[in-house]
Amino acid sequence: MMATPAELDAMRRALDLALRGPRGVNPQVGAVLLSPDGEILAEGWHRGAGTPHAEVAALSQLEPGAARGATAVVTLEPCNHHGRTGPCAEALLEAGVARVVYAIDDPNPESSGGSGRLRAAGVDVESGLCADEAHALLDSWLTVQRLGRPHVTVKWAQSLDGRAAAADGTSQWITGPIARADVHRRRAQADAIVVGTGTVLADDPALTARAEDGSLYESQPLPVVLGERDVPDDAAVRRHPLAFVQYPGDLEATLADLRTRGVHSVFVEGGPSVAASFVREGLADEFVVYVAPALLGGDLLALRDVGVSTIDEAIRLTFTHVERLGDDLLLVATLSEASEGAS
Amino acid sequence: MMATPAELDAMRRALDLALRGPRGVNPQVGAVLLSPDGEILAEGWHRGAGTPHAEVAALSQLEPGAARGATAVVTLEPCNHHGRTGPCAEALLEAGVARVVYAIDDPNPESSGGSGRLRAAGVDVESGLCADEAHALLDSWLTVQRLGRPHVTVKWAQSLDGRAAAADGTSQWITGPIARADVHRRRAQADAIVVGTGTVLADDPALTARAEDGSLYESQPLPVVLGERDVPDDAAVRRHPLAFVQYPGDLEATLADLRTRGVHSVFVEGGPSVAASFVREGLADEFVVYVAPALLGGDLLALRDVGVSTIDEAIRLTFTHVERLGDDLLLVATLSEASEGAS
Repeated sequence: MMATPAELDAMRRALDLALRGPRGVNPQVGAVLLSPDGEILAEGWHRGAGTPHAEVAALSQLEPGAARGATAVVTLEPCNHHGRTGPCAEALLEAGVARVVYAIDDPNPESSGGSGRLRAAGVDVESGLCADEAHALLDSWLTVQRLGRPHVTVKWAQSLDGRAAAADGTSQWITGPIARADVHRRRAQADAIVVGTGTVLADDPALTARAEDGSLYESQPLPVVLGERDVPDDAAVRRHPLAFVQYPGDLEATLADLRTRGVHSVFVEGGPSVAASFVREGLADEFVVYVAPALLGGDLLALRDVGVSTIDEAIRLTFTHVERLGDDLLLVATLSEASEGAS
Repeated sequence: MMATPAELDAMRRALDLALRGPRGVNPQVGAVLLSPDGEILAEGWHRGAGTPHAEVAALSQLEPGAARGATAVVTLEPCNHHGRTGPCAEALLEAGVARVVYAIDDPNPESSGGSGRLRAAGVDVESGLCADEAHALLDSWLTVQRLGRPHVTVKWAQSLDGRAAAADGTSQWITGPIARADVHRRRAQADAIVVGTGTVLADDPALTARAEDGSLYESQPLPVVLGERDVPDDAAVRRHPLAFVQYPGDLEATLADLRTRGVHSVFVEGGPSVAASFVREGLADEFVVYVAPALLGGDLLALRDVGVSTIDEAIRLTFTHVERLGDDLLLVATLSEASEGAS
């Protein structure tokens, strides 16, 4: 049996409801309970870690017994684990739900298996309805599940010959205003922005995402500082709307902690040693490189050593986007599958 | 008075005739002599340095006095200097030519002024007919006149992070077959190809321009080796269809000598020190950079130091062409006007 028109409408409604919840550690999920004749009985969505899952939130709207024979329409496979909230599959069974329609499978091995549990108990289960929309909704969360950590984009600006600065360290305005505006838009799309203490001390960046008129974008990345040196009392990052977080420098531990803070995407802005560390440890998924039409020569490279000793160990990428930004070029690349997982 | 239809036809014929002469130190020039009623009296073209100029070649077809009152249609302003052949302006005056129509001015201050000389003697002179076509015909020769030396394109291949090789020096196939085929097409379009002895000793390049099936293109660049070290007896460059030329390393002297050999365009293929030398001395006009989707880190840069000590001295370029070549990128840039002439 395919999904009914009422179930399709309910799934679209559930996707809208999901968006009411916060992006974070847990997925955004929505649920709609339908009577056997397709009337909406109740709605729910997940309000964040530690609160009821969407299905339970919907069930909680009803008197006991009112969901018997109902159909639950959910954007993500009902969970099967005993977390802080109990497995949703059990809650749906206890409520007497007769049919479950969901969009995409739970990718998390700890919580998945809800559909099997439901089927085993005789519930009619249908999956894949509006799967593309649900994937798009949960894109960054699904990436975190797949990677086991936030997605990492490493950004740098360089001259055509791969330098970040002239021999004396000067580098101001190596790229033009259109490239810089692009950086700020990407900052606004990231959950966190990472720089080393060296960059904080040398450049004193604000780490805010700003529009071209200087005003702050509504969405601001969490500022993250890597390294053990103190951030000066008058550092610009201390005036960021979000309080900065500092980690001593272990990248895996840093990403693990950021994940627990609900960070899905990290934008690494340097400097050249921090960028190289992410690459060397196999923790860089995407590269956003602004290439200025200039030659600088000298030793101040945009990316330091990445631990490649011979050509067969080259870190292979795929160019996914090439764009002219004013006089500059933007080159976006992702780690090639062959290189993925290599450190 | 504008040019007549017969003069326009004659100029087109003269442009065709010009092409019969060789590209080289002297410009390719064609000339047609028309009777007062527009009949072709004689044709000529320049067959290369030391031979008569096109106008004189045409006049020599005629009996003495037969060009009296004629119109000379020439692709380049008749010269006014006493070279190996005597000034063409004088020859036209002596022959009694009444009118001269030419396409573009002679850019060379030593030979220009022929049109003024003719006008002063009462000849009717018209310039600019088919000027675009004549400019296109003489494009590379005109560039040599403007620069005072052959045009220099510096080519290199690099990883996204500006390296030419991994730390152990391995670099084979950093770019893919489509990029390599593009290199060979550009070699075939250049008059000379320059490498340092270091590259000859390390990579033993053939310096030929080859089609993808390995066959030689019809047009082959003159192989040029820079440096004082001996080219080994079994070096591949010794099997090039053209005998290679070696210079000790003074770039200006090298380019001056290549100019006397009729070289208009030079393709510098490295290595990183030779490329940097051309840049540092302000002798690089264009950059052809193949960017492989890879990161290498390490110290083996595609371009060595270019003498820039602070950001204000950056060698500013303009990206003129960006293209995907298979998995690689081709970035072409020219020296920006602000940087031009800087060393």
